[in-house]
Order: sequence, then structure tokens, then C-alpha cells
Amino acid sequence: MILGAIEAGGTKFVLAVGNEKGEITEKVSIPTRTPEETMPEIYAFFKDKRIEALGIGCFGPLELSRNKEKYGYITSTPKLAWADYDILGNLKKHLHVPVEISTDVSGAALGEITFGDYEKENTLLYITVGTGIGGGYVIDGKIHNGMLHPEMGHILVTKNPRDTYKGACPYHENCLEGLAAGPANEGRTGMKGIDIPDDHESFHFIAEYMAEALMSYILVLSPTKIVLGGGVMARTHMLPEIRRILKEKLNDYIKTDQLSDLYSYIVTPSLGTESGIKGALALALMAE
Amino acid sequence: MILGAIEAGGTKFVLAVGNEKGEITEKVSIPTRTPEETMPEIYAFFKDKRIEALGIGCFGPLELSRNKEKYGYITSTPKLAWADYDILGNLKKHLHVPVEISTDVSGAALGEITFGDYEKENTLLYITVGTGIGGGYVIDGKIHNGMLHPEMGHILVTKNPRDTYKGACPYHENCLEGLAAGPANEGRTGMKGIDIPDDHESFHFIAEYMAEALMSYILVLSPTKIVLGGGVMARTHMLPEIRRILKEKLNDYIKTDQLSDLYSYIVTPSLGTESGIKGALALALMAE
Repeated sequence: MILGAIEAGGTKFVLAVGNEKGEITEKVSIPTRTPEETMPEIYAFFKDKRIEALGIGCFGPLELSRNKEKYGYITSTPKLAWADYDILGNLKKHLHVPVEISTDVSGAALGEITFGDYEKENTLLYITVGTGIGGGYVIDGKIHNGMLHPEMGHILVTKNPRDTYKGACPYHENCLEGLAAGPANEGRTGMKGIDIPDDHESFHFIAEYMAEALMSYILVLSPTKIVLGGGVMARTHMLPEIRRILKEKLNDYIKTDQLSDLYSYIVTPSLGTESGIKGALALALMAE
Repeated sequence: MILGAIEAGGTKFVLAVGNEKGEITEKVSIPTRTPEETMPEIYAFFKDKRIEALGIGCFGPLELSRNKEKYGYITSTPKLAWADYDILGNLKKHLHVPVEISTDVSGAALGEITFGDYEKENTLLYITVGTGIGGGYVIDGKIHNGMLHPEMGHILVTKNPRDTYKGACPYHENCLEGLAAGPANEGRTGMKGIDIPDDHESFHFIAEYMAEALMSYILVLSPTKIVLGGGVMARTHMLPEIRRILKEKLNDYIKTDQLSDLYSYIVTPSLGTESGIKGALALALMAE
């Protein structure tokens, strides 16, 4: 089965062709501009690929309630050219195949559980920590959405008293994304992300905030596996520090096999940087 | 169909007989003592009731993974007489009917969505604020459990600088239950719960902590309906205050129909104090 996949991000769109085993046979990346400039390139790429279905993991917020008139729209994004844009409808109209849409990070969660090492997990939480912070949750192979997709990156955390950074989120003073995503780290240190040394105190703050957020995710969702991806998590010293602080915070209140082995419980993506695009292939398998 | 229902709490067990419409025909309440004292009374009550199935919403923590040897056990509870007690197995053995078990608060969530006013909701979050704080989440008619049932009452919240109370939770310094449940309110004020006046500042702290916790629940789960029950929430001045602070904290970051009408979104139990016992009837319907 020939499947199309799109990972739509704020700076680039990854377009791929693959199959139901999660194998990718062709992949390109194009810069994100306006829909008028970006979408025709997408249509052109898939035009002669003979795809039978398409999946797209897309930046949000998205309208994902199927009973809503604007199902499949990008809604109130700060990327103004894409606000109120019917990305699902336009893909269907131009490519004439069934298309399934979800958020990029829910797609990544689905990718890890469908094509990664975690197919036996009943539930999987995928958190990305990069330019922004987001979370996707899969239960029994199905992406969880309620009134909206999750917006886990914006939960509030307790600021370390030594951390004088005011936060980068225009909506919330102490939210995780505003204190722990890449731009927050740059704002706090006054350095480009790539120039910040691993031993900068900023990373300790981020590890603290991530640990507090993970504690909340664990207490609310009780996931059987947690995958942490994204650029900030690519700093390999972060994960052990996050696990250490999380263990302290949980303080053995919950006793499960998973929590007694945080090394196996909170992990990096088994698909490396391809969780998102392979998740889009998994979405294509669900398209009707 | 004649169904049995048990709401098992730390101070009392409610036993009821009812039917598949959620109608209760008989109900008694017995004090919680040791299993050796309490359980025979339960067996005796149901003995001649001709129930065809039984549901139990029980205090936890519980082992709810069906593939575990101790499925249906009460596990590491501080109520030591009940620790490591096979409540599911004993009920099945003595009553000879199928039995379904869940936490008390997940049962209440199921009760509200099955027999209450919220049957059209895809997802419903029930939070109880009483002697303890707990949450149950129902998705498409099914109670959500992951590696364990949720333990939502223990998420961390930011302490108000004016609140000098050290918290009542032996595990976590700043957790919601330790700062906002009934015993915390008594510890903070030095008064019996019933004697604390509505305008005591302690209730303002509790409203703040509840609002922060609800913000996390909303961002993580995105429930389509939130029901707040329990003794502390029976103070009718609390809910408007919680809604007000929550609205401030969310700061219009998420735009949904639900969040634009918090009065309809965050509500009291439509079944009054019977969410739990009617939830146990709903559990009985699922027993196999």
C-alpha cells in the first residue's frame, strides 16, 4: 500500500511516501511560507506518487471535532497566514485521497506506538521539547482528543526562586513552554541555543520544570510509557537529570513496575527524528 | 435486571440494589471496619437479593491491570487492615456473580455519564474534593486507566505566599490534596471543617489551588465536561470563585465552546451525592 505523509511544522514541511510497514521510500523537506506558496508544492510532490491515502501531523491549534463545520482547519495560530485555513479540505480536494489529520505531536506518539519499539504499550505519552512544548497521548492505538487536542505544554510549573527569567509565553506567566522550551532558554541566557553549554544553570531549571510537568502528566494520565523528543531533549545530559528530580518529587507515592524503573519508563524516541513523519504514515492508515 | 452496587469508602460502605436504568430500590450504609468485620455484612446484605451482577467503586490504590495476579486487590493503602486485600476475589467467591471494580471516583465519573445529565459527553472528568482529592476520567463510556488509575489529587500546585500551612500530605510538600482537601483546611485553620466560615481566607487558597489543578487537567486531558463533587465543593460559594480564577489563569489561550461558558463546563454532580453508588450500578452493567 502506497501512503503519503506530511509533517507540517512552523519552519518546514516534511513530505514523504511510504508504506503500511512504516518504511519510507522518498522524503523531501520544504520551507513553510504562506499556504498559497507552500500548498502547491505539496500537491505537486504527491501528484504522480500514486498514494492511496495521506496522513498529516500538523502544527496547531487544529479543529479536530469531526462534527464541527471547521473540522480539519488550522484555527487561531500566531502564524497568521495559516489562521483559519482548511488544510484537510484542501489536501482532499487536490489529492483525491482519504486524509487523516492530527497534531504533529499526537502523530509522533502514534508513530512511536505503531512503528517504534513500543507497540505493546496500552498507552503512550509523547512530549516534544523544542521551539515549543507539546504532548500527544495514545490509548489502545487511538489518539486522545477531548474538546480539543491536548495543550500539555502550557501547564503551570513552580518557578525556581533563582530563576529570574520572566518567561516567554504571552499567555501564562509560569507555564512550562514559556520557561523550558528553546526560546525560553535563549531568552534566559541571552545566547543562541546551540551556544549554551550543557552545564549552564538554565538546563537545571528546565530539568526541574520538566520533572514537575511529568509528575502532573503521570498523576493525571498514568501512561504506561513516556517518550521525550525534540531539540532540547537531544541534549543527552537532560534525561538523567529529569528522571532524578522526578523520582524525588514523586517520593514513592505511587508504586508501579514502571515507576520503579524510570530508565525504561521515560525514554527517547525509538524512531529518532522520524517519529513525526512515520506517525503521519500511521495516520494515513486510519484515513477513510 | 437486578444489579448490586457498592461504594466503598474509608468511613462507610454504601450497599445498594438497583437496575440497569440506574434506579435504586434499596440502600444501606455500614461503617468501614476490618475486612473480617465488614465483608460478612456485605455478603449477608446481598445474599437474598437475587442480583445478577455487582459493581464496586472502591477507595484505592487498587490493582486494575487485568493481566496482573493481584487484579482487583486493594494494594498499599494506609488503611492497613485493607492493604493487600483481594476485595474483588472475595466478592466473587461469596456472591457468585460477575463483579466489576474501579476506584470510587472513576465510578462516580461513570455514574454521571451513564445515569446523569451528561450522557452525550464524549469525555467527562469527575473530581471529588473531600477528605481526599481524586479524579476519574471517562472516555467514550470507558473508564481510563493506564499503568494505574489516575492519582490526580496529588499534582503539585503553586502555594500562595500568604498561605503558611505546611500541607497535610506525607509524600508531597505542595500537592493539591495536601493543601486543598478537608483535613488541610482543618489543619490550616485549626477549626473543624463544619465550623470554618465561608469567608475564611482558607477557602480562597483552596479555590486558587483547585483552579490551578483544573487548568492542568484541562490542558492535559481536554475533557468535554468537568464535574466537581465532594464535601468541600458542597460549599456553594466555591465553584464561582474557582471558575473566576481559572478563567484568569487560562487567559483565553484555548478557544473552545466549553471554555467560553465555564458555568456550563464546570458543574456540580447531576446525581447529587449518588454519583458514586449509581456509578457502581453502571460498573455492574460492565461486569463479565
